[in-house]
Amino acid sequence: MTPAFSADGLIPAITQQYDTGEVLMLAWMNEAAIAETLASGHACYYSRSRRQLWRKGETSGQVQRLIELRLDCDGDAILLLVDQTGVACHTGQRSCFFTAMRDGVWVQIAEPEISPKALYPEV
Amino acid sequence: MTPAFSADGLIPAITQQYDTGEVLMLAWMNEAAIAETLASGHACYYSRSRRQLWRKGETSGQVQRLIELRLDCDGDAILLLVDQTGVACHTGQRSCFFTAMRDGVWVQIAEPEISPKALYPEV
Repeated sequence: MTPAFSADGLIPAITQQYDTGEVLMLAWMNEAAIAETLASGHACYYSRSRRQLWRKGETSGQVQRLIELRLDCDGDAILLLVDQTGVACHTGQRSCFFTAMRDGVWVQIAEPEISPKALYPEV
Repeated sequence: MTPAFSADGLIPAITQQYDTGEVLMLAWMNEAAIAETLASGHACYYSRSRRQLWRKGETSGQVQRLIELRLDCDGDAILLLVDQTGVACHTGQRSCFFTAMRDGVWVQIAEPEISPKALYPEV
C-alpha cells in the first residue's frame, strides 16, 4: 500500500478531530508533506496557492497534533486524525464546513470562535 | 456561496456517517451529481474512471441517504452527511479508510463486514 498521487503530485487529505469525529477541513498533501507530518507529529499540507509546504498553525498557532494517518482503499485519499488546537478554519470557525444547503439555499450553520484578526494580527 | 469546481468540473466530496461521525469515503462530484443528490435524497457521485454519474449503491444496494450537504469556507470541498446502508467500500469494509500508518508501516485496522462477491454477485 502506498499513496497514489495525482498527476500534479498531490493527494486530498481529510482532517478529522480524533475524539469528536468532527470533520475540520480538506486540504492537499504531496509526498514531502506526508513525510514531514509523520516525522514532526503535526499536520503539514501543500498549499496549492502558495506552491509550498504549509505547516498548519505556523502563523496562527492553531496547530494539529497528529493522532493517526490513514489511507483509503485505492490509496488516493488520506484521512488525518488530529487533535486541533483552537480552530481549523482561517475564518475563525472551528471547522471549514460551516455552510449547509437547507431548503435550496446555502445557510451559515455555525459562528466563528475567534476573529480572523486575532488569528493573523499582522496580515 | 456556490461550489467552486476545478478545471475538470469536479469537486471532492467527503462522506460521513451522520450519527457516528465515521468518515466513510472520499469521492468526486460534478454539478449534475450535486443536483441529483439534492433532488433524490441519495448520494450520487461522478465516477472519474467510468466518466459518468455514479448512483452509489445502484448495483450493491449499499445506498447513502442524504442527511445534509455542506460546503467548506472557500467552496472547493463538499461534506455529505449520510445514513449509510450496509458498507461504503467496494471491498466490503464499512469505511474506505481501513489502512493506517503505524510505526512506519501500513496496517489494515478493520475487517470487511461482507464479502465483495455478496455485494457484486454478477461481477
